[in-house]
Amino acid sequence: MNMQLSIIKISGNIIDDEAELAAFLDIFATVEGKKILVHGGGKLATKVAEGLGIKQQLVDGRRITDSETLKVVTMVYAGTINKNIVAQLQARGCDAIGLTGADGNAILAHKRVHPEIDYGYVGDVDSVDVAFLTGLLMLNKTLVFAPITHDGKGLLLNTNADTIAQELARGLGKSFDVSLVYSFEKRGVLLDTNNDDSVIPQISRQYYDELKAKQLIFAGMIPKLDNAFAALRSGVSKVIIGRAEELPLLLKGKAGTTIVNE
Amino acid sequence: MNMQLSIIKISGNIIDDEAELAAFLDIFATVEGKKILVHGGGKLATKVAEGLGIKQQLVDGRRITDSETLKVVTMVYAGTINKNIVAQLQARGCDAIGLTGADGNAILAHKRVHPEIDYGYVGDVDSVDVAFLTGLLMLNKTLVFAPITHDGKGLLLNTNADTIAQELARGLGKSFDVSLVYSFEKRGVLLDTNNDDSVIPQISRQYYDELKAKQLIFAGMIPKLDNAFAALRSGVSKVIIGRAEELPLLLKGKAGTTIVNE
Repeated sequence: MNMQLSIIKISGNIIDDEAELAAFLDIFATVEGKKILVHGGGKLATKVAEGLGIKQQLVDGRRITDSETLKVVTMVYAGTINKNIVAQLQARGCDAIGLTGADGNAILAHKRVHPEIDYGYVGDVDSVDVAFLTGLLMLNKTLVFAPITHDGKGLLLNTNADTIAQELARGLGKSFDVSLVYSFEKRGVLLDTNNDDSVIPQISRQYYDELKAKQLIFAGMIPKLDNAFAALRSGVSKVIIGRAEELPLLLKGKAGTTIVNE
Repeated sequence: MNMQLSIIKISGNIIDDEAELAAFLDIFATVEGKKILVHGGGKLATKVAEGLGIKQQLVDGRRITDSETLKVVTMVYAGTINKNIVAQLQARGCDAIGLTGADGNAILAHKRVHPEIDYGYVGDVDSVDVAFLTGLLMLNKTLVFAPITHDGKGLLLNTNADTIAQELARGLGKSFDVSLVYSFEKRGVLLDTNNDDSVIPQISRQYYDELKAKQLIFAGMIPKLDNAFAALRSGVSKVIIGRAEELPLLLKGKAGTTIVNE
């Protein structure tokens, strides 16, 4: 059996709230074994961009990362948020190291090419340096990833944090028994979005198709679940969706929704 | 004989100028063997602070790092500057990893205590994790340090980059044959500050005392030279002062000023 590795993606709402973040890090620090935390941006980047008078570019409702926005997200994600999480984990006895994809060439990406929309400095992942990350984990470090990658030609690229978590899980799934946790504000995938007690404990491929056919899956969950099944197909052992506050229970399969590849 | 390690501190004027930085990184990338780059802040932090409407606090002409300034330097030093240097080194085939003292608990410090002046969130270094940094160097990574440390209790601390370079040299001097290079705008320690050709090739302790007695050392150089002798006393093999552009020659002792502990 391979060594266990937990990869946890935390959502923006935790990062935005100092007390919630502190409470989550209390819990995260106690998770046993090898672990990786992946964080997104939260609202701070928008606040800093506004402060600096940088206008957000939207095309068809999608945020565009122009060169000024790239500077802001690099500052806020890789600087403020990443280093504060690392320092707070150190204070909790968890020996963390903060990384972007550029550090140690951990995650190589390319600037997104799209026939219609120029997303700007947005990266789609090409590869993960499994040997390097395994080396760090073997030095007993907990890895904290900011959602920034690079193209190997000197460009930093803004990259979706869900994707980073998934690519790390896929790459490291070759040498570790990976549990991938997507934490978000709900307790799991709900049958009734208004009822937090309607968590579906387990979703198989077949059950997912049934739920979709009956339109019982909230539209916003579909990309998350599609990603989850893709991760399982590529060698990740377990994908779990639920609330960060319940992390220890999520990892034990006693809370949240576990996605099963069958 | 121990393995060679070059630790190079670059000055703010290089960071402020995109073309100069690129030219320096071209040279730095070609330096053979294990190496560490330590960078300071440059003028970008001041610009960002001004943009965000954060006033700089000065007490007796000294910059005070209040909590808002700490946020800015964390963003700019650990985010913008550090990650851009890392990405640019990757583009030059130099496998770099960016670090603050919080990452992997690399450099532990405490908030400066001063009987008269409250410097704010400024760190004085307590210890360097030699085993961890050696581990990274053995994974063939080039380390790029931002001038930020932590206190192990969750606080990030603004820390002088010269001091960081010196503490790294001192710590790693136990297992490596360390050359510590302080790069600045002059070609070395000059006998005549207006004549760039008056570089003193070598300064021993005795010669330094003579130069000081004759007031032939520019006042601004004294702290740098005192630090250099302190580093030599604590096990660093060589300390060299000179222009970053001449880095390969500096490391060979063919340019700049070499400080000798005798």
